[in-house]
Amino acid sequence: MSGDRLLELGAAELAERIRTCELSPVDLIERLLDHIRRHNGLLNAFITVASESSLKEAEVMEREAREGRLRGPLHGVPVAVKDLIHVRGMRFTAGSRILSDSRSESDATVVERLKSAGAIVLGKTNLHEFGSGTTNVNPHYGPCRNPWSPERISGGSSGGSAAAVAALMSPLALGTDTSGSIRIPASLCGVVGLKPTYGLVSRHGVMPLSPTLDHVGPMARSVRDVAVALEVIAGFDPMDESSVVYDVPSYADALEQDVEGLRVCLLEGQFEVPPDEEVERGLSRAVDALSRAGVEVVEEKFAAAQRVRECWAPIRLGEAAAVHDEWLRTRPLDYGEDVRMMLERGRAFTAVDYVRALWLRREIRKELLELLKRFDAVLCCSTPITAPRIGESSVTVRGESYEVYTALTSWTILFNVTGFPAVSVPVGLSREGLPISVQIAGRPFDESTLLRLARSLEQELDLRLVPPIAR
Amino acid sequence: MSGDRLLELGAAELAERIRTCELSPVDLIERLLDHIRRHNGLLNAFITVASESSLKEAEVMEREAREGRLRGPLHGVPVAVKDLIHVRGMRFTAGSRILSDSRSESDATVVERLKSAGAIVLGKTNLHEFGSGTTNVNPHYGPCRNPWSPERISGGSSGGSAAAVAALMSPLALGTDTSGSIRIPASLCGVVGLKPTYGLVSRHGVMPLSPTLDHVGPMARSVRDVAVALEVIAGFDPMDESSVVYDVPSYADALEQDVEGLRVCLLEGQFEVPPDEEVERGLSRAVDALSRAGVEVVEEKFAAAQRVRECWAPIRLGEAAAVHDEWLRTRPLDYGEDVRMMLERGRAFTAVDYVRALWLRREIRKELLELLKRFDAVLCCSTPITAPRIGESSVTVRGESYEVYTALTSWTILFNVTGFPAVSVPVGLSREGLPISVQIAGRPFDESTLLRLARSLEQELDLRLVPPIAR
Repeated sequence: MSGDRLLELGAAELAERIRTCELSPVDLIERLLDHIRRHNGLLNAFITVASESSLKEAEVMEREAREGRLRGPLHGVPVAVKDLIHVRGMRFTAGSRILSDSRSESDATVVERLKSAGAIVLGKTNLHEFGSGTTNVNPHYGPCRNPWSPERISGGSSGGSAAAVAALMSPLALGTDTSGSIRIPASLCGVVGLKPTYGLVSRHGVMPLSPTLDHVGPMARSVRDVAVALEVIAGFDPMDESSVVYDVPSYADALEQDVEGLRVCLLEGQFEVPPDEEVERGLSRAVDALSRAGVEVVEEKFAAAQRVRECWAPIRLGEAAAVHDEWLRTRPLDYGEDVRMMLERGRAFTAVDYVRALWLRREIRKELLELLKRFDAVLCCSTPITAPRIGESSVTVRGESYEVYTALTSWTILFNVTGFPAVSVPVGLSREGLPISVQIAGRPFDESTLLRLARSLEQELDLRLVPPIAR
Repeated sequence: MSGDRLLELGAAELAERIRTCELSPVDLIERLLDHIRRHNGLLNAFITVASESSLKEAEVMEREAREGRLRGPLHGVPVAVKDLIHVRGMRFTAGSRILSDSRSESDATVVERLKSAGAIVLGKTNLHEFGSGTTNVNPHYGPCRNPWSPERISGGSSGGSAAAVAALMSPLALGTDTSGSIRIPASLCGVVGLKPTYGLVSRHGVMPLSPTLDHVGPMARSVRDVAVALEVIAGFDPMDESSVVYDVPSYADALEQDVEGLRVCLLEGQFEVPPDEEVERGLSRAVDALSRAGVEVVEEKFAAAQRVRECWAPIRLGEAAAVHDEWLRTRPLDYGEDVRMMLERGRAFTAVDYVRALWLRREIRKELLELLKRFDAVLCCSTPITAPRIGESSVTVRGESYEVYTALTSWTILFNVTGFPAVSVPVGLSREGLPISVQIAGRPFDESTLLRLARSLEQELDLRLVPPIAR
């Protein structure tokens, strides 16, 4: 097998080759570390590369594989972890100056589960400071660049995870998503990213941003890999108050099921920023592909769309201000300016604003649930634009100017506010060679259907998105 | 049977006599209406007396009883409903000027359930305006007076329900409880009042005050009657977001079980206002009675006590300000001054205050749950004082002066903040002839144990608390 081809293999495929002793985990990690060394200087996807520990673990995994003792479905498979998630013994920054000298004393539950399944943590990925932003232009650790065009943002806040996966530095990564932080960078970097249903995946050991909107989820280059990883990390954790699911289905098995006959709603309505022409074409491509697979796609208006931001703001910003209450008072200047300003906006909301937002959230959730009584899933863009340039604070879409933050989150926050699952899947490249993605969202805890639909898109479109830089 | 004795009968006993056709529901209602006519001028327990409709329903119930067709366990039994709870076709005031001309279009779920069980709504009871206060000194409908001493408050906000039951105007009543509004008037008027676990009894059709603290519950002159009524009103309602319980046990059957061997914690700790000497003696009487019944009572400190008010304030006041947001802006002068001031205090809390209060709530709930791992229930006073005089805004307890509001809620709000069940049971009269009560609280959804303990107190003490005025 050619060396370069090795890096393109997905998690499930790697696990299979390691299981059959066709592939040495040590060789794999060495190849990845080498690739990271070559590209991380430019891309800045990793804040911490766990060279020593990952090699040491790979040796153990290799020995165990040879003896036929497999830990689980990810035995020997490398994973990159967003540096908002604790990995025991590793440096922990949360992308901040405030925590730049800290180290994790224990594993987050998701990391513990990945390790139990045999995964090897390759390192900690760059992020927007404290997960509070969508560009990943990090004032403390530098911007994480987009592998498809390094003068552009990777998207945030899980930009390092998305860039690492897109640039073949890791087959798998963990991200977190409070307003779109998994799906936005996945969309801009052309990888698959899933925000699970609120309550499905534990957030214990993950630094909170806005606890009722925070989610942890997997990112990979294929739907199958996302499904395999989700199966490993999902399930009840008494340490997370939101955790509610005891029985986790086999998402990988679900992918075997046909999508014919499923009904999907192409989401219309007054979302803040319409998809630009390129993204619109990507959506049409997705509709055509799903139709070819026997899915019925019907366009329908979602009336609550225009109230989503009103609902989101006091919750997202108010909770973050509560989380950061003490530091914001004692160390305000240690925050990047954009993050500090968002926290200060959060401080200005009243209890009445927050409570009314919670009530509105219930209405929006009900309305989306009503829609999902008639459809198996909804389809919309992940981001209405492709990756903006680093430093751009506004973008023009169909003649109107929007803040980058607003544009990037305009189609994602609905699924944080409702807590419903959503997956971002690439559907092609723009004329400029930038990834375009769509979002498939669905009923609470029905990740299986989303993944089936995403998989059928992937199969119909048959893309192999590898950025030229990583080849 | 003597006429006066009839009014003293409880709901379960009345139901039994109606079932056996020994008692005519029409006679019963006529007697009660007559008694109400005689005493309501002074006590002001009812805002609306449903003379016509209750008699008409009694005729139907009487006919059905004669034909052996019983609707349920409360067939023909009268119930008084706090005027914060909708009863179809009746005037609905919420104790306010703002709603003084309104009428209910449908029944609250609890009322619907009571009616299905055969109960007859006697009328709507007085309350503290919008349920937002503890005195029931209502500026729009007049104060509801304490049947034991009419120059004293009945307590609030369900004062009308408590006074009606205490003064033999109704065997049964419904109240609501956001900070103690069932237990405080029950305590001051000498009746049994239960605040069920949050999520057990539907609040659909009940005007909200602070939705995450609001509860609906029964009030009666005996524990058995409270148990019977709870069994009727408890259970899942899709119209209430907090509703979670599908299987409701038979609380009345649970009363048959002995309490021997149960362990009760006599709650100690820095609650804001200590019980005065009389209430302290009442507590001792309760401890002795429970001990005689074979219950082990152990005194223990509850450390979180001193943080309960800090947790309560942003939630109680912030949510109420959100509920009343529009009226407070458009009709501020239509509120009584005390209620308007509380709503304005609620407006001043920030989203950060509120969110942090929610987190503190979780801690307090955990700490109480820890305590309840070692005990079957906790025991404390319901109110640290007996009924204050109408117009008094402060009281002196053991040499210290406290606001009446603070004093009356100092032991009740813990169970609104946690949502755990709590029942107030009278244990005797003070030297001035005012009721003294204790509170038994316990694990979520373990109303059965609370009611068993309350019943054993009642049996050991063998009180027959009827205020002289009502005899």
